[in-house]
Amino acid sequence: MTTLCSMTREQLLDMQKGLKQEYDDFAKKGLKLDMSRGKPAPEQFDISKDMFLPEIAGKWITETGIDVRNYGSLEGIPECRELLSKMMDVDASQVFVGGSSSLNLMYDTISRAYNFGARKNSTPWNKLGKVKFLCPVPGYDRHFAISQLFGMELIAVPMDKNGPDMDMVEELVKDENVKGMWNIPKYSNPSGITYSDEVVRRLAAMNTAADDFILIWDNAYCVHDLYEDRCDKLLNIYEESKKHNTEDRLMIFCSMSKVTFSGSAIAGLAASPKMLSYVKEMVFYQTIGFDKMNQLRHALYFKNVESLKKHMKKQADIIRPKFEVVLGTLEKELKDLECAEWQKPNGGYFISIDTMEGCAKRVVQLCKEAGVTLTTAGATYPYGIDPKDKNIRIAPTYPSLDELKLAIELFCISVKLASVEKLLK
Amino acid sequence: MTTLCSMTREQLLDMQKGLKQEYDDFAKKGLKLDMSRGKPAPEQFDISKDMFLPEIAGKWITETGIDVRNYGSLEGIPECRELLSKMMDVDASQVFVGGSSSLNLMYDTISRAYNFGARKNSTPWNKLGKVKFLCPVPGYDRHFAISQLFGMELIAVPMDKNGPDMDMVEELVKDENVKGMWNIPKYSNPSGITYSDEVVRRLAAMNTAADDFILIWDNAYCVHDLYEDRCDKLLNIYEESKKHNTEDRLMIFCSMSKVTFSGSAIAGLAASPKMLSYVKEMVFYQTIGFDKMNQLRHALYFKNVESLKKHMKKQADIIRPKFEVVLGTLEKELKDLECAEWQKPNGGYFISIDTMEGCAKRVVQLCKEAGVTLTTAGATYPYGIDPKDKNIRIAPTYPSLDELKLAIELFCISVKLASVEKLLK
Repeated sequence: MTTLCSMTREQLLDMQKGLKQEYDDFAKKGLKLDMSRGKPAPEQFDISKDMFLPEIAGKWITETGIDVRNYGSLEGIPECRELLSKMMDVDASQVFVGGSSSLNLMYDTISRAYNFGARKNSTPWNKLGKVKFLCPVPGYDRHFAISQLFGMELIAVPMDKNGPDMDMVEELVKDENVKGMWNIPKYSNPSGITYSDEVVRRLAAMNTAADDFILIWDNAYCVHDLYEDRCDKLLNIYEESKKHNTEDRLMIFCSMSKVTFSGSAIAGLAASPKMLSYVKEMVFYQTIGFDKMNQLRHALYFKNVESLKKHMKKQADIIRPKFEVVLGTLEKELKDLECAEWQKPNGGYFISIDTMEGCAKRVVQLCKEAGVTLTTAGATYPYGIDPKDKNIRIAPTYPSLDELKLAIELFCISVKLASVEKLLK
Repeated sequence: MTTLCSMTREQLLDMQKGLKQEYDDFAKKGLKLDMSRGKPAPEQFDISKDMFLPEIAGKWITETGIDVRNYGSLEGIPECRELLSKMMDVDASQVFVGGSSSLNLMYDTISRAYNFGARKNSTPWNKLGKVKFLCPVPGYDRHFAISQLFGMELIAVPMDKNGPDMDMVEELVKDENVKGMWNIPKYSNPSGITYSDEVVRRLAAMNTAADDFILIWDNAYCVHDLYEDRCDKLLNIYEESKKHNTEDRLMIFCSMSKVTFSGSAIAGLAASPKMLSYVKEMVFYQTIGFDKMNQLRHALYFKNVESLKKHMKKQADIIRPKFEVVLGTLEKELKDLECAEWQKPNGGYFISIDTMEGCAKRVVQLCKEAGVTLTTAGATYPYGIDPKDKNIRIAPTYPSLDELKLAIELFCISVKLASVEKLLK
């Protein structure tokens, strides 16, 4: 098969005609699908339904005798701190269990830095002229949105298959106004890549001009492997950071929203003893405590790491076929034409596709007009602006397999159509 | 019986001797009781255990077809907005259901005002020189702590049995730096009084110099009546405010932490349509959504207001005898001596006692040394400073009835001892 770029104008026109026909046929099907957000499918929640069996939901005393129905234990119950410590690869004493939303914990981290300082007794960021934050791209729109809300200057740092461009990062952090960096280090949203050992080592070792730098380590997909024999392994950044005495800048987050129930699970953060004590001191003002009954249910349901792994294998068995449908169709429809590029992730929730330059918005529009909603083009970049207009995030988990097959066929037609349009201009 | 003040020095010395003996006997009992916080007793949680029966906890689709296990519905599920609207006396469309902690919702309200403005497009408070906040006293330490954390100047406003001194409030709000006011309008923490209709009307009608004033209406004890035939009735401030076009300054809060499970229940806020839309717009940045599974459990468990009332009657049946033991002992031991004053609340969680001036700290210390922890003296005042050192908050719910009997006897001995000490000085 010829690549699109090597086709003659006649060949392209001919192809366009065929594609238009295919597209119109699809539009007539009256599809109404949403692949815009990383939402689990209902079957994924069914896996966790035993959490409400009486032998779990009817228990309210922890091993150490805490009645989880009453106030107290701001930092979370021991069983749950232990469980989340395994997900974040730290000691349980470093874990704070906070509510059901890790995004909220991150928002609070930024808000705290603005109002009271990123460290105990450091200058609140709202007293500073300009705060800059590094944003690996493509990245997670909800991270960038928090930075934007607080008026930060967002600096995009390109990612490749090893993670963010570390030469660029090391250069940028010499600016004392650069106060932090967003990271989804494993099965990154949306590219699905995992930071290489070298990237992790350099992030741990780098000298930042700001002595109150925050390295946000959103390990949202730490247990979200798709294959048993092809799992990415992330280097333990906390251990690396200790070697350089940089562990106070680390704020590690994890969430069970994509393990059990989305928005009704548990989320946690991990930090150095010094920073954890600061977090506890400040969260004291916010609340008397988080939902410990939910914490105990999670801890009793996942007795140990082995049962968590088994559980995630069941999740993977539902998600994997969806990833394979998407990747298979992309391969079949787009590879030889060389009009798009993508990674094959070993885990996570997304597939990130780069179209030809200037085509992403058009593809999203074409899909939308035929009934399939994708993440807004540009959403994976700071300020919602993808300078090359080429990145599209696909979230394959929510639709059924049959719906997904249709949606991804439409997507491929739209990519081809937009590419041909571009080449014909 | 003679009052303490009318006793001769000899009589007082004689009394002191007897009291010391009684106190020492108590100290020997090795009590270890905590009456410092408004914590429910375990039996109170048992009332709600049916919330985890399979017919409730096993349901996850709302009447309108929302799968509560997935992301979405930031403002809360309709059933739950309806339920909380009854507690806050507003339309369901005005309710936002947010997590399990109303304190967190209040903290976020203040934090939002500081970072982004109390109203959409109003000046963030962190850009202002000085922000002052009115604090009816005695009041809730956790409210005052939030104000202090953000660096506000706290202005104490005395309360009597009708609520805060409204002449003083109306005068103070002429200062444009006075940006808001804390209120627990029903069964107030700690005094147990309910704002009179006149106080509510004047709060709704008053002219504030600040056009971004926030009237925090923490209706924490709205359904916490102790007696069926002696319930305080709070005037609907939202309706009163509408008459004066002041409804945008209202932020109404409620919580089920003292209805079902403390820290594991649901909390909500209510505001004008304009302010609710601002809240939703801003909370969007914080989280993808709150725990809707817990929301649905609460909504299914409390089918309607009648079942909520029945439930609260069961709560009252456990709490009432404890209030009566405290009030009865105070009456028997202290009334005729005229060395303390207190209100008899019709609901809520606390009994507030005023000792003779300069005695509160000493009473708390005496109790502590004999094994009974009370709320720190001064905690009910801004900055923890009770200028007359006379207010003590008693939280009678957590101890068992037998423990409480002992604790309150010790308390009365301590009050008498501290009063005699003062008079002998």
